[in-house]
Amino acid sequence: MSPSTLDELIDALRCLPGVGPRSAQRMAYHLLQRDQRGAARLAHALAYALDVLRHCERCNNFSETDVCARCASPQRDRSLLCVVEMPADLAMMEQTHAYNGLYYVLMGRLSPLDGIGPRELGLDRLIARATDGEVGEVILATNFTNEGEATAHTVAELLRTRGLRVSRLSRGVPVGGELEHTDSGTIAQALVERRAL
Amino acid sequence: MSPSTLDELIDALRCLPGVGPRSAQRMAYHLLQRDQRGAARLAHALAYALDVLRHCERCNNFSETDVCARCASPQRDRSLLCVVEMPADLAMMEQTHAYNGLYYVLMGRLSPLDGIGPRELGLDRLIARATDGEVGEVILATNFTNEGEATAHTVAELLRTRGLRVSRLSRGVPVGGELEHTDSGTIAQALVERRAL
Repeated sequence: MSPSTLDELIDALRCLPGVGPRSAQRMAYHLLQRDQRGAARLAHALAYALDVLRHCERCNNFSETDVCARCASPQRDRSLLCVVEMPADLAMMEQTHAYNGLYYVLMGRLSPLDGIGPRELGLDRLIARATDGEVGEVILATNFTNEGEATAHTVAELLRTRGLRVSRLSRGVPVGGELEHTDSGTIAQALVERRAL
Repeated sequence: MSPSTLDELIDALRCLPGVGPRSAQRMAYHLLQRDQRGAARLAHALAYALDVLRHCERCNNFSETDVCARCASPQRDRSLLCVVEMPADLAMMEQTHAYNGLYYVLMGRLSPLDGIGPRELGLDRLIARATDGEVGEVILATNFTNEGEATAHTVAELLRTRGLRVSRLSRGVPVGGELEHTDSGTIAQALVERRAL
């Protein structure tokens, strides 16, 4: 006897990552009962984003135009290409104000257990982008997780065989970090990758 | 340089309860990157539910019609009115197959700390519904939480002064429950509310 429109909404909310039947129900009640304006805004933002957003032809990030503003900018150093996993990683790199090259956003990482191999991740597109003749160095800024490291390793192999210079963000003790509170694996890496002064 | 359409979607997702900036971002990426069909379905289900769903004039539950099918059914015992907090509670009551009366769904509970008093909860509508002349007994089935108990207490006062019989679900040891694994507060209540055999 529960209205089917409500059931459909609850079911549709479950497409959100990490949302099970209970929280989908809670969300539906909340939207319909307490925040109809927010719900209308969400419905519109979703439909509009699906309509308007695509992937930038050059960096693969979400964009409202075929080539995003960053890739089209003449102020950027076209000889540098930084490879990140997600748009949020790109945003973090930008926040450093220490990089003025271009990006390639993988929109994921290699994850064999989830069936995401080089083909699913579209590494051929990255290779095509990196071998455009303008790029001289590719900086791998994937995460320092197992999957991120594996992704960096694979990408490095693919690009080195094509004559590109490939580098990776350094590992080490965080700025402001105290050795006493740093895990030993990080310290070990900081020792291996120690820098001559 | 992040596209504003994406930012708007991320911001709109934050109207969902329990969703902060991080998970809103994760949800937006997931929907756009991995589940565009689910996203389209969600946008449509939201817009449709906002358009179609209203509150049943009699029981206050979500309904696609002015009076829901349950309230309109001639098979239901109109002398019994069960008061629950949320539609999910109504669904649990129905699953018992032990109740054939009608319902009133508060769509919340008294919560002074959140500014939800008798007026915000619309208890005047419940009183109008319960004093229609057909209802003989009101069964309070709000939760046995502090707020649910306070709500039951207030509703009981309001209805008793209007000459209605008011009852409350019993508290006690759950069916199949072992005393050893039941909290002492529940056992104390089961003792106070012990039943003559």
